[in-house]
Amino acid sequence: MEKLSDFKRLSLNQITTNGWDMREAVDGCAHAGIPWIGLWRDKVQACGLSQSRKLVSDAGLQVSSLCRGGWFPAASKQQREARIDDNRRAIAEAVELGTDVLVLVCGPAPDQDIEAGRSMVADAIEQLLPDALAAGIKLGIEPLHPMFASDRSVIVTLAEANRLIETFQSPALGVVIDVYHVWWDPDVLPQIAQASGHILGYHVSDWPVPLPDVLLGRDMMGSGKINLHLLRSAVENAGYNGPIEVEIFNQRIWDTPGDEVLSLIKQRYLTCV
Amino acid sequence: MEKLSDFKRLSLNQITTNGWDMREAVDGCAHAGIPWIGLWRDKVQACGLSQSRKLVSDAGLQVSSLCRGGWFPAASKQQREARIDDNRRAIAEAVELGTDVLVLVCGPAPDQDIEAGRSMVADAIEQLLPDALAAGIKLGIEPLHPMFASDRSVIVTLAEANRLIETFQSPALGVVIDVYHVWWDPDVLPQIAQASGHILGYHVSDWPVPLPDVLLGRDMMGSGKINLHLLRSAVENAGYNGPIEVEIFNQRIWDTPGDEVLSLIKQRYLTCV
Repeated sequence: MEKLSDFKRLSLNQITTNGWDMREAVDGCAHAGIPWIGLWRDKVQACGLSQSRKLVSDAGLQVSSLCRGGWFPAASKQQREARIDDNRRAIAEAVELGTDVLVLVCGPAPDQDIEAGRSMVADAIEQLLPDALAAGIKLGIEPLHPMFASDRSVIVTLAEANRLIETFQSPALGVVIDVYHVWWDPDVLPQIAQASGHILGYHVSDWPVPLPDVLLGRDMMGSGKINLHLLRSAVENAGYNGPIEVEIFNQRIWDTPGDEVLSLIKQRYLTCV
Repeated sequence: MEKLSDFKRLSLNQITTNGWDMREAVDGCAHAGIPWIGLWRDKVQACGLSQSRKLVSDAGLQVSSLCRGGWFPAASKQQREARIDDNRRAIAEAVELGTDVLVLVCGPAPDQDIEAGRSMVADAIEQLLPDALAAGIKLGIEPLHPMFASDRSVIVTLAEANRLIETFQSPALGVVIDVYHVWWDPDVLPQIAQASGHILGYHVSDWPVPLPDVLLGRDMMGSGKINLHLLRSAVENAGYNGPIEVEIFNQRIWDTPGDEVLSLIKQRYLTCV
């Protein structure tokens, strides 16, 4: 596996420095020489959409993705339609922010029927694809780890994301591969190969042992048990050479000054990713 | 789905009343009219093997399974052989305790190479099968939830367990299906069908939302999001009609008096399982 030798592909997913607002994150990346940033809608909203765009653009950064669309299943048709409308707004925001990838965290089922939840996800994606296509935005299904099946996403394997991609055969639909969510899967390598041509993003972090918390347990690359070189190699062999986003939900990291976090990210990116 | 109308198939997995020693657990089941008990090796050892057998037998209980064998992968050949030897002792204990099922929690990889860990599991099972066959014991691979892939088991899907069963084609090898570990799987129903004829146990509990803890987060049947009727129906359609073990790791339940826990188990068993 060829080592990464510079930061051309490195992206800071904004959640990793959750204590920073938009301006601080943009300034932090610019100062650290990190050329890409992955934005979150709540932080964009807090800053203002056009102001966010201006800050990013003035700093010479590129936006690797917008997090997040999705959250499709709901108990009533009316609720489901409201969520699809919200995703249409997210598509418009992605256009304005100058990225072509909207990350989909598909959402949990409203009840015990996880298969019905999966059907609602497929229905919603089908309805959104014409909008995405017209806007030049790609919808990136991010399969979450199965431990989030009850509360964040009914889509919990790469195989399911690939099945949806195969079903819709649309250039506006692909997958975002996050190592924390997929590393455990005995089929991860063939499923990454299967996703070839549809990989819209690659997220890195690590899985410490034992995992201290379901949501906030993930940690910095190199501080856990994930074979990061193996997975990057698989993703690159499948043709992906776009930005590599560092996305870490971890209170200890959130409590660390952002500049220190970025410095550690750069160090670990070269040695561990 | 036909409701359960009596307690003929109900089994208390001993971990559910973790505060009870062997005698208390046996007395508790006998008093509550629970005819089966799933034993743990550490509690058997604390009581003594023949004394455990005597207590269970005198109370008229049957042992549904012994937990647990497995934990196969290790860094050195010497360590791996020591673990296989320990599993041979577990097989002998299962014989003495009058059960024909030894549950396998296969163990984590010693390093980042999860596929090598999986090979070590297959190697160990291959070595143990003649012993199991000779002793009349069945090895029940329990796929754990993928969130345990780093620290408890490299075998995290029913599909992997089924592949091992297909590889070895042995009447001494099967699978133990625990709803907490498999409910999220988009292939859970076909994989349960695939396991037909090899299902050696069925464990129930529930997945509360959000999950408060990786290891101790599971809860009483009916207190979470698992479609228990659907899964029992699938397991029965695959031909399994043996004991249904209640296995719950949960500090709050461990802190509740055992008799109260058994009373709640019986109530939820009839209404939710």
